[in-house]
Amino acid sequence: MVRILTKENVSQLLNMSDALKYVEEAYKQLTLGNAFVPQRIAITDPAPGLTLIMPGIIGGEMSALATKIVSVYKQNPEKYNMPTVLAKIMIQDINTGDIVGIMDGSLITAMRTGAATGVSVKYLARKNSTTMGIYSAGVQARKQVAGVYYGLNQKLEKCKVFDFKKDIAEAFKIEIEKELGIEVEIVESGDDLLSNTDIIVAATTSTTPLFSGEKVPEGTHISSIGAHAADVRELDSTTIKRASLLVAGLKEACLAEAGDYIIPIGEGIISEKDIISIGNIITGDVSGRTSESEITVFKSVGISAQDVAVGKLVYDRALKEGIGQDIDF
Amino acid sequence: MVRILTKENVSQLLNMSDALKYVEEAYKQLTLGNAFVPQRIAITDPAPGLTLIMPGIIGGEMSALATKIVSVYKQNPEKYNMPTVLAKIMIQDINTGDIVGIMDGSLITAMRTGAATGVSVKYLARKNSTTMGIYSAGVQARKQVAGVYYGLNQKLEKCKVFDFKKDIAEAFKIEIEKELGIEVEIVESGDDLLSNTDIIVAATTSTTPLFSGEKVPEGTHISSIGAHAADVRELDSTTIKRASLLVAGLKEACLAEAGDYIIPIGEGIISEKDIISIGNIITGDVSGRTSESEITVFKSVGISAQDVAVGKLVYDRALKEGIGQDIDF
Repeated sequence: MVRILTKENVSQLLNMSDALKYVEEAYKQLTLGNAFVPQRIAITDPAPGLTLIMPGIIGGEMSALATKIVSVYKQNPEKYNMPTVLAKIMIQDINTGDIVGIMDGSLITAMRTGAATGVSVKYLARKNSTTMGIYSAGVQARKQVAGVYYGLNQKLEKCKVFDFKKDIAEAFKIEIEKELGIEVEIVESGDDLLSNTDIIVAATTSTTPLFSGEKVPEGTHISSIGAHAADVRELDSTTIKRASLLVAGLKEACLAEAGDYIIPIGEGIISEKDIISIGNIITGDVSGRTSESEITVFKSVGISAQDVAVGKLVYDRALKEGIGQDIDF
Repeated sequence: MVRILTKENVSQLLNMSDALKYVEEAYKQLTLGNAFVPQRIAITDPAPGLTLIMPGIIGGEMSALATKIVSVYKQNPEKYNMPTVLAKIMIQDINTGDIVGIMDGSLITAMRTGAATGVSVKYLARKNSTTMGIYSAGVQARKQVAGVYYGLNQKLEKCKVFDFKKDIAEAFKIEIEKELGIEVEIVESGDDLLSNTDIIVAATTSTTPLFSGEKVPEGTHISSIGAHAADVRELDSTTIKRASLLVAGLKEACLAEAGDYIIPIGEGIISEKDIISIGNIITGDVSGRTSESEITVFKSVGISAQDVAVGKLVYDRALKEGIGQDIDF
């Protein structure tokens, strides 16, 4: 029997507070060696878009085995009036291998990415943080703000946002103010985000650095979740050089796919050993932030363990609450 | 909209004759560089079984993009009264990336494996072949006979079968005689298969060679579809040494996973360049059988392109014939 969960079902079953707990647990189990995340498979030619195949397994109490298939087809909106990013998650019973749940994965993708930033904020931002700035007002950005909000135990008061598209920024402001009850300020330039903000989030499709590292105030925590290829980045080498902690969702994944770290390593500014997985901070192997003045950086390229964890959360809750449709096939 | 196809739907929509054509086309497109089969991902610990994630893409007229998730849990029958092998195939629209079909994959797995042997028989067995022998009478074996039957243009007259389990062999005899209208003879030992048979199929779970290569008659075509790890094999080094053609479903996959070729390469009996992909024979780059007396070997470890091709066949036909259930999620 396969439980089918639509986007609406998933939306009903998932909140950021829980997503954050599950993503944190996934990172922890990875560091404990109790989870396995193979390098994801990318398929392109002869297709006009990219498909990523992302399986993963997490042991311990979570006992989750799942695969996300996510596609990124840039011409979808214009050509087919369909979203660029489409995703589904297949949940297997870890004891039998049987696929027991299939769910829409687009909301989960945005939520688990927001949750990753939330976990980084919990461990790396200054404890008294109340303000953030975000590059981009898109779909991912909205869940990033929610991630920061719950990462700060709902103490976030204000979010500054910059987006080249004014209408998107306006929609963002209305949605976020309503959803989280915080103040949203639309700013005129990217640099405006850097003053009087405790946390900076980069959630763009940019392939080059968004700001000069010279301008980042001391004490800032930065989370970058855009740019996931070896030759592109959202953060410049100065930002990386100035940071006292260079944290990754998963070190191996960032060393394979994150230009933000790969490029400065190539330049000799940092070395591989300077990068640590956030799981090492969660388990207490490595200290998180130790002063009010240091700059901390978190980079996540997205790993299957995040989807596996949040997918399992949604599946278990669907069974418990009797949501979704069962099909025997 | 996602078309859901049960095992019964798939069974209704699929026959070996078509499976063979689609698998042949998949092999051909691979050789033409118009398809991509990443090395499959294996997931085990901390699960009590194996999951293989097998995505693939085939261009040309077929335009197929799909992923099979197949699990092999040996304790399933005893512990959960469930099959050892479970599989589902997710079909994507190659133009949008959207998952548009999800189907049971167990019958397709057996059929595409039989079809691979069928393609090898078409190109490598003697043209006047009418007899075969098969090691194992299991589920895979039954579809192997069908593959040989259609690979020989329905000219197969007799199949000898050896299985340690007598009741399985009896069931095999009844099923195959009814389904294909050929004579089935149950033999007492593996070596009994080697005399007066044009084609030998090895479809076992054995990890060591099934017969001595000395005993293989001249002119025999051998297809081995069991044993898919670097350190196990169904065929001994003598068989490999005596063969004039060492063919692979896909050379790269066999060099990674087929002990039947990897072990003799390690022994220095053959070298990597002696192995050719069957696609090179289908396209005519390399000659197939050129004499009545030579021994030919085909080894297949199973590649996603086979599942992608046959999955696409089933999906297209389901749409055309209005079979299955549509779910919007």
